Amino acid sequence: MAVPVRPAEPALKVALLGCGVVGSAVATMLVTNADDLAARVGARLDLIGIAVRRPERARPDVPVDPSLFTADADTLVRSADVVIEVIGGIDPARGLILTAMKHGASVVTANKALLGEDGPTLYAAAADAGVDLYYEAAVAGAIPIVRPMRESLVGDDVQRVLGIVNGTTNFVLDKMDSSGAGFAETVEQAQALGYAEADPTADVEGFDAAAKAAILASLAFHTRVSSAQVHREGITEVTAADVQAAREMDAVVKLLAICELLRDESGVPSGVSVRVHPAMIKRSHPLASVHDAYNAVFVEARAAGELMFYGRGAGGDPTSSAVLGDVVAVARHRLAGGHGPVESAYADLPVVAMGEAMTRYHISLAVADRPGVLASVASVFADHGVSIETVRQRVLGDGESSRAELVVVTHRAPDASLSATVAALTGLDTVDKVVSWMRVEGA
Amino acid sequence: MAVPVRPAEPALKVALLGCGVVGSAVATMLVTNADDLAARVGARLDLIGIAVRRPERARPDVPVDPSLFTADADTLVRSADVVIEVIGGIDPARGLILTAMKHGASVVTANKALLGEDGPTLYAAAADAGVDLYYEAAVAGAIPIVRPMRESLVGDDVQRVLGIVNGTTNFVLDKMDSSGAGFAETVEQAQALGYAEADPTADVEGFDAAAKAAILASLAFHTRVSSAQVHREGITEVTAADVQAAREMDAVVKLLAICELLRDESGVPSGVSVRVHPAMIKRSHPLASVHDAYNAVFVEARAAGELMFYGRGAGGDPTSSAVLGDVVAVARHRLAGGHGPVESAYADLPVVAMGEAMTRYHISLAVADRPGVLASVASVFADHGVSIETVRQRVLGDGESSRAELVVVTHRAPDASLSATVAALTGLDTVDKVVSWMRVEGA
Repeated sequence: MAVPVRPAEPALKVALLGCGVVGSAVATMLVTNADDLAARVGARLDLIGIAVRRPERARPDVPVDPSLFTADADTLVRSADVVIEVIGGIDPARGLILTAMKHGASVVTANKALLGEDGPTLYAAAADAGVDLYYEAAVAGAIPIVRPMRESLVGDDVQRVLGIVNGTTNFVLDKMDSSGAGFAETVEQAQALGYAEADPTADVEGFDAAAKAAILASLAFHTRVSSAQVHREGITEVTAADVQAAREMDAVVKLLAICELLRDESGVPSGVSVRVHPAMIKRSHPLASVHDAYNAVFVEARAAGELMFYGRGAGGDPTSSAVLGDVVAVARHRLAGGHGPVESAYADLPVVAMGEAMTRYHISLAVADRPGVLASVASVFADHGVSIETVRQRVLGDGESSRAELVVVTHRAPDASLSATVAALTGLDTVDKVVSWMRVEGA
Repeated sequence: MAVPVRPAEPALKVALLGCGVVGSAVATMLVTNADDLAARVGARLDLIGIAVRRPERARPDVPVDPSLFTADADTLVRSADVVIEVIGGIDPARGLILTAMKHGASVVTANKALLGEDGPTLYAAAADAGVDLYYEAAVAGAIPIVRPMRESLVGDDVQRVLGIVNGTTNFVLDKMDSSGAGFAETVEQAQALGYAEADPTADVEGFDAAAKAAILASLAFHTRVSSAQVHREGITEVTAADVQAAREMDAVVKLLAICELLRDESGVPSGVSVRVHPAMIKRSHPLASVHDAYNAVFVEARAAGELMFYGRGAGGDPTSSAVLGDVVAVARHRLAGGHGPVESAYADLPVVAMGEAMTRYHISLAVADRPGVLASVASVFADHGVSIETVRQRVLGDGESSRAELVVVTHRAPDASLSATVAALTGLDTVDKVVSWMRVEGA
């Protein structure tokens, strides 16, 4: 939607830190959409420099003057109005963002790791400097979720957030579901297709999702939550048998980022549970139909009810859409002489240990097929105060010493009681083996 | 999340216009969540009055001092900092909003009819007064969609919006799909369950959806679009046979609000098509699994790719969630001495006539089962420049004069060419009857 832009219009100086997949897409959009962006902001966005490690390297895909590339990020950020940080990682990103804000620049970042580890330091620095720190791209790529959480739902009370916020693990689990294959084999396939990195640790061990969970929980519950406070279990131990067990109960396995508000007996918020782990979720749940590397965030709020935000969670173009939306917002704020809404941490609720989270378990047991077994198993659940929702028994042999499979799905109970139940079942003489257990979410 | 709020904190005067289903929920949330709202805004929100037609009526469900009710809306809005308008309709809402803004109040409204009919007047009045006019609740109830469109996607280029934005019609069509029943019978059922009004015209004839389409198109394409410019067809003529025909091609019928950007041969935006009509959509499309009275808005943007926003589109609590989010936003802006981003209409694209919209048709024909029929039918499509994607023929009898059903699905073509094709088919001597036709979306 090109419109003539008068040369006398005001301009804002934009510095870009990083020129990988996301940085290249951001630079390209800044240049090719310059007229539209100017019309939407009310000022031209002048790209004054791109900080990279090797400025001399040819980058034919990035349609900018090669002289814009510089290795001196520190000098660059001191003269910008808006700094876009897409380097990722903790250092040097943190130092550069702090320097930029100290020198009066507003910052747009996609850096979930840094925000998850040290968000409050950055939020405080932005508040001190009176500048914006925007980070829509840090959670779920192109999907608008930070702004809806921070602004749209601010008049409501968020009760729970269930997010599929890591595309790699969703791709792997979705393929395991459709193919019946195992984890290792499917990760190799994902790597071959470019959906998983050569070292997939950050994704498959849940580190990436944990950082996003910390950011979402902070926004949802007006409480500071860091990545280190997030209970984290990856998907490396999810087996084809687990996926099959889920299918038998008309469910799928997803790696979920879960943020929940806990309340005391009188309904007053008493803490937050923030965790990342694989979980079974019914196929009728909207999150179950999130396929491939798509992301989605399911939010339950007191007045709004159930909401879901769905889209692409990664990739250069989708991430740059979120980055550019933030750039336009902070640029408008600068022109108006203000800044956007800041993070609020007034509720200051404790982050509870995993044992206190209220969860449900799906437990599969190999047992002897004889009278009394179910009673002994059931008494272990009762001893731990865990109530059972369903039990399904399947006889596996037909001889005298035939064995059975017992599948138990519990009601909600403290996770510590549930894990203690699993441990006690392991020691029970009527139980050959706890074949598998997995949490169940989205009831 | 109650926190102590110091009495010396600043306060903002809030006036509420209307106390029906939404107004009652808003008043209740303002009172019961007062401490949290104060912490999030940075000032108490003091409800100074509720304008209603019958102030003397007892309203035991609304936990406010009965002396707050007044019939004098005009005086009330003149002394408020923030006015919440949930009366609905054109008058007196328009006059009250204009008076409020003229006297310096920011306005939060859920009034889609008014914004669809006369949005630009209101946006201009807000800009003149330097106040906010926020309306998240006007489209898709609790679902954050106005803010994401206006702010999150502002750095991207929206190509298309497909919205299920009317809960009543979605409930009716979803029930017709699951039960096989006809329209009239299903509307009666929806009325009995409270999902349709006694006079369901605004919903089933698409007026409500058309107003929302106008708002969405304006935001998506930075262009003024009014309800009157939206091509509108309701669902009253959707038959059980249409729903069955959709099922046979693994699709469902939905009433869609469709906003599309048209481009000329060189890719430059040349116009926008904004329309509301029933359409078949494949069951694999994310919108197909939006059931009951839920709403969802599917957005295709150049960089972001496909996004979907899903949730409750109506009801007191969901709507008040959106209203309160806006109230917090505009209250924060007032405290900071500024206002939020304003509507942009710089692209100023023409709204094209329905005939120029690019659509696809599903056409079901009753024909004679004899050689040459398909050729004569196909030549009608060719004469109109319409290319055929699939043809399916089903023989209906087995005698000499047996008849056949021919189901044709076209590729995209100008809607005028497609409707002319249908008219020409009606006159063809090899065609007994055009049994039905419906547009197909979401390819």
